[in-house]
Amino acid sequence: MHNEYMLVDCGEGAQMQLSRYDLPLMRINHIFISHLHGDHYLGLPGLLFTLHLHHRQNDLHLYSPRGLNEILTTQFFYSRSVPSFRIIIHTLNTETRQLILDHPHFTVESVPLHHKLPCCGFIFKEKPKSLRIDPQKVPSTLPPHYYKALKNGEDVVDEAGKVLYKNEDYTLPPHRSYSYAYCSDTIYSQELVQQLQGTDVIYHEATFTSADAGKARETRHSTAADAATVARQAGATKLLLGHFSARYRELHTLLQEARAVFPNTELAEEGRTFYLTRL
Amino acid sequence: MHNEYMLVDCGEGAQMQLSRYDLPLMRINHIFISHLHGDHYLGLPGLLFTLHLHHRQNDLHLYSPRGLNEILTTQFFYSRSVPSFRIIIHTLNTETRQLILDHPHFTVESVPLHHKLPCCGFIFKEKPKSLRIDPQKVPSTLPPHYYKALKNGEDVVDEAGKVLYKNEDYTLPPHRSYSYAYCSDTIYSQELVQQLQGTDVIYHEATFTSADAGKARETRHSTAADAATVARQAGATKLLLGHFSARYRELHTLLQEARAVFPNTELAEEGRTFYLTRL
Repeated sequence: MHNEYMLVDCGEGAQMQLSRYDLPLMRINHIFISHLHGDHYLGLPGLLFTLHLHHRQNDLHLYSPRGLNEILTTQFFYSRSVPSFRIIIHTLNTETRQLILDHPHFTVESVPLHHKLPCCGFIFKEKPKSLRIDPQKVPSTLPPHYYKALKNGEDVVDEAGKVLYKNEDYTLPPHRSYSYAYCSDTIYSQELVQQLQGTDVIYHEATFTSADAGKARETRHSTAADAATVARQAGATKLLLGHFSARYRELHTLLQEARAVFPNTELAEEGRTFYLTRL
Repeated sequence: MHNEYMLVDCGEGAQMQLSRYDLPLMRINHIFISHLHGDHYLGLPGLLFTLHLHHRQNDLHLYSPRGLNEILTTQFFYSRSVPSFRIIIHTLNTETRQLILDHPHFTVESVPLHHKLPCCGFIFKEKPKSLRIDPQKVPSTLPPHYYKALKNGEDVVDEAGKVLYKNEDYTLPPHRSYSYAYCSDTIYSQELVQQLQGTDVIYHEATFTSADAGKARETRHSTAADAATVARQAGATKLLLGHFSARYRELHTLLQEARAVFPNTELAEEGRTFYLTRL
């Protein structure tokens, strides 16, 4: 988002997959870990060691429920390594919604999920964007240094305060701001639906089909129908399903089940790219 | 070896590679970790979690320098998991050679290596094998239950102690016993050469070429020529090279360099199989 690379959860082999898909490992400055089950963080130590081998210099921010600090510290201690870069670990409160990253162009918030471990989801939300200069109306004589004022919603005035260019005559409304929520792992919860109101794209775990709903409840996971219900009730535009149980050899059943509830659903399969601005 | 599956070191993604090469994850009962640098053990937690998900019941023995217990305990603590099977961690003394596994048909010993961290290699050695029954000489009248005595080197006697079948008349010498040593990571050392005397197959790290010998010394690694020198001086039959620095796009230079010193050298590339009994 806005030239900032972020990674959400980091299972074993994440560094190999990043490399396989030509994603720029060294440019990631923020890594969000939803909870400390192995499939969500075991790729992190290797990724950190690789950044160290590549002599990374920039700070790296990690966001995780309590425990990650101790896990990483133990590993660094026994490898007698001091990383080449600063690692800043932000310990998340998994009980309440929190603003965890305030970037000039977007925010990241954590929201409580309901799993067997302290766990949270993440909501990425673009801030309101600038007004756009209307190319049909702007005179070729307008000096470019006035553009910034117009984009910020200001009129252009002279030294005496006289309005030279009235904002509304030269601008168009801003592009819309998009939002994305990542929700894994969790049972269905109405509180979560509330937290997700107005989110454009929701990634939601769908570990099981409804035929295995008992197993889902027992392990505090969702079915594909649960995920679709969350997306529908939250008024989302698009739903991405992931975190499928290895028991399903093919994923069509999960997709069908979700689409029956929420049609604009896709499978977040390994290597697929989804653009937030192409809904 | 002798129907026992063992894993030596366990880098990130080891469980995926085991699966890719159809190796039976659940049958591994012994995992040997040479030292606690990430590339030698970061695949272990994920492998353990997977065994747990598959409801493994049998004990699993881990052998490692000090620290693995604390690393794994921290991870299990924060994942609130109690594995479905017993994990027995054997902490290795990396200062002296030790017998660490005494199987009816083979032994495993640890030997000190010389790296930046406490580190050891592993020597797998078949015990002397039984005599073989000579199919040319054994009479068809010999009851099969006497075979075991003959294989153990005994004569077959009657109740009065009279020799019915004299061992040397019916047996051939045993097949030879093979040995294999795994040496990673280490600088060249004459003590190690001593420890490896008489080993048939040596796997030895060859992180660098001789052109980068300074880098090898600095990081306490070996060059391909170092590895070959160890194999030659130890009187090995075959040398396998591995642990190549990512700086080498092709490995031919490493192989050439080693073969100039020790001709029977091969590259231990991902997925290749070497048989100890086919030298």
